[in-house]
Amino acid sequence: MSDFRQQALDYHALPTPGKITIEISTPAETHKDLALAYSPGVAEPVRAIAENPDDVYKYTAKGNLVAVISNGTAILGLGNLGPMASKPVMEGKALLFKRFADIDSIDIEVTHTTTAEFINTVANIADSFGGINLEDIKAPDCFEIEQKLIERCQVPIFHDDQHGTAIVTAAGLLNALEVQGKDIAKAQIVCLGAGAAAIACMELLIKCGAQREHIYMLDSKGVIHTRRDDLNAYKALFANNTDKRTLADVIDEADVFIGVSGPDLLPADLLARMAPNPVVFACSNPDPEIKPELARATRDDVIIATGRSDYPNQVNNVLCFPFIFRGALDVRARMINDEMKLAAVEAIRTLAKEPVPEAVLVAAGVEKLEFGREYIIPKPLDPRLKPRVAKAVAEAAVASGVARIQMPLNYMMAAEA
Amino acid sequence: MSDFRQQALDYHALPTPGKITIEISTPAETHKDLALAYSPGVAEPVRAIAENPDDVYKYTAKGNLVAVISNGTAILGLGNLGPMASKPVMEGKALLFKRFADIDSIDIEVTHTTTAEFINTVANIADSFGGINLEDIKAPDCFEIEQKLIERCQVPIFHDDQHGTAIVTAAGLLNALEVQGKDIAKAQIVCLGAGAAAIACMELLIKCGAQREHIYMLDSKGVIHTRRDDLNAYKALFANNTDKRTLADVIDEADVFIGVSGPDLLPADLLARMAPNPVVFACSNPDPEIKPELARATRDDVIIATGRSDYPNQVNNVLCFPFIFRGALDVRARMINDEMKLAAVEAIRTLAKEPVPEAVLVAAGVEKLEFGREYIIPKPLDPRLKPRVAKAVAEAAVASGVARIQMPLNYMMAAEA
Repeated sequence: MSDFRQQALDYHALPTPGKITIEISTPAETHKDLALAYSPGVAEPVRAIAENPDDVYKYTAKGNLVAVISNGTAILGLGNLGPMASKPVMEGKALLFKRFADIDSIDIEVTHTTTAEFINTVANIADSFGGINLEDIKAPDCFEIEQKLIERCQVPIFHDDQHGTAIVTAAGLLNALEVQGKDIAKAQIVCLGAGAAAIACMELLIKCGAQREHIYMLDSKGVIHTRRDDLNAYKALFANNTDKRTLADVIDEADVFIGVSGPDLLPADLLARMAPNPVVFACSNPDPEIKPELARATRDDVIIATGRSDYPNQVNNVLCFPFIFRGALDVRARMINDEMKLAAVEAIRTLAKEPVPEAVLVAAGVEKLEFGREYIIPKPLDPRLKPRVAKAVAEAAVASGVARIQMPLNYMMAAEA
Repeated sequence: MSDFRQQALDYHALPTPGKITIEISTPAETHKDLALAYSPGVAEPVRAIAENPDDVYKYTAKGNLVAVISNGTAILGLGNLGPMASKPVMEGKALLFKRFADIDSIDIEVTHTTTAEFINTVANIADSFGGINLEDIKAPDCFEIEQKLIERCQVPIFHDDQHGTAIVTAAGLLNALEVQGKDIAKAQIVCLGAGAAAIACMELLIKCGAQREHIYMLDSKGVIHTRRDDLNAYKALFANNTDKRTLADVIDEADVFIGVSGPDLLPADLLARMAPNPVVFACSNPDPEIKPELARATRDDVIIATGRSDYPNQVNNVLCFPFIFRGALDVRARMINDEMKLAAVEAIRTLAKEPVPEAVLVAAGVEKLEFGREYIIPKPLDPRLKPRVAKAVAEAAVASGVARIQMPLNYMMAAEA
């Protein structure tokens, strides 16, 4: 076993199994402490919440608590390995919520036989939390699951594989197009991949100005077109009336290539046929659709982004999900709507245009980061992300009427700091 | 509002809402840390668990994680106030798990319309945890819920309102009978109350040697007898073929009175009619069925226990539930069976007969505690409970074949210490 693989196993096994623990946040030593924490004192907040349901945010941990929920049907790139095998990933996500946004997060893995049963299960426990992050659920089930849960639940439901990816991709892509001097409304877009992330990315790009008819989407059978009879409802929205069938057929003069597919699926000769000043998001992880070295060797007018931290322009969901939840929780949003997602896109892309603090350069191990082809998107460890993105999202929630409370004053001050 | 009530509200609201938080238990600062905790490193434990399901105990927090689950249908003595109002109690229970047994515990409140839906919901999320503590679920639903969940789940399911109460009551009662020189097999028992705790207490006492035909159980309509047609299946097991109808009818010559009913329901004149050297467990909380002062003034041969910390002989579930789960988790028990419950009873009652360490006297604010009428049951803050009860429970799990692993060596050593 490689050194890194053994390190990864040891990291999970030691010092105690797993990556998260639950701790007491109030005094709990004396008889008096315990009389306040449990019987008889606990009857007071119980009565208060029974009288005024919103008091649950005042007297319990709900308001800062996000459940990371999966059924293990699409774990990382590893496929459907079941709920138990997904647990390390879900705990990892909980760890990231805490690490980046100080959100308490617990993982829950759901066993079920039907999509309806999964939806019922999650809906029945949803009120325990301030929000729910769905994770690693296979397409197309994930679309129906998320939509029905949004309709049934009073707290934000967010499938990060879809929307986290879409938000970060959109932020990076809009900046890349700006650098290349292109207009998204006119951009010809090729999307290789038609899973949850691909479809969510394209839908969000359309909300950002892309034209649906300028998008070619391809799944494992090739171009999605109107004469195919094997399309689910979500892919069907991207069916073009065209005779083109392969990536080679659609790549000519494309301005944008977005890959959420597999390793090395964009050959250099196809990249060479794209329009001048193209943008390539090769997000297959860990092995991108085209290696950045090869892309740059093929043409020097390309902007390339990948999912990897060892190249410039990393598309990483952690730029978004901790902070979109932070903002949603801070105003007790009932849902995460399009306004909030677009606010996150805008906040992330704006940050990439600002001077980068020294600490971020040090953490990234680089001498400088200046908005341009090698820096279209902020670094994951940039501490400005939390206050900026969270504030933008919270403001959008308030403005669009899904917040239960107004922006907290101290929160706004923290965002300014 | 009284000072204590305001303190209780403040305790829950400050410094942050609620009583528990979730923390990271592994390094999570650097890029390298995060690459081990999440992508790409997390793929290693995912693959390991997919190959060997028991590895979920090795690489995730599952093995030390207990969910406290309620539907809020019987919150404390306050009734059916719904899942959200139960959240402070469930968080409080999670706090007690951590405080007393270092178990990570998270509360989950379930919304549902049918008992079957509640059962499905809990069963579908059960594998996320090392065990499940059911709490504040109304009778008789709680009996069916617990039984079906035990059948469906591979982790311990324990309804503390039933079995925690029963175990502590049995431990105290067996000791009280010993002090009074009585044999449980011959004891005449009156049980005032016929809810979840009452039925579980009587069933466990029968397993400890009490005779079912020596028990009179009373609900709000009086004595449970064979000519009543309003009995659920659980009460019906205690129906006596008798003409007696009231507490006054059955109290004569009773050796044991167990109250899980309401304040002041055992009048002094009825206590006076009990057999010589009676045992009274007046567990209604905060106001017992008879006040200890009144009981002692009525007759000096009585042993009285209550649910209150300000009198001797407090019957408190916290003597049991943290440690029965500690023992069950430490050997990865598939369930908590009768053998484990009886082992807990024995461990708790044995401890009350041993010399009490100075620290326990100080914490309890008394000069001495010696096995006898004023000390039949250990104090909740006795630090010996954890190693003793947990070890006894773990050993019983191994011996009865429900443990997934043998007793950990360091665990046994800790129990000896």
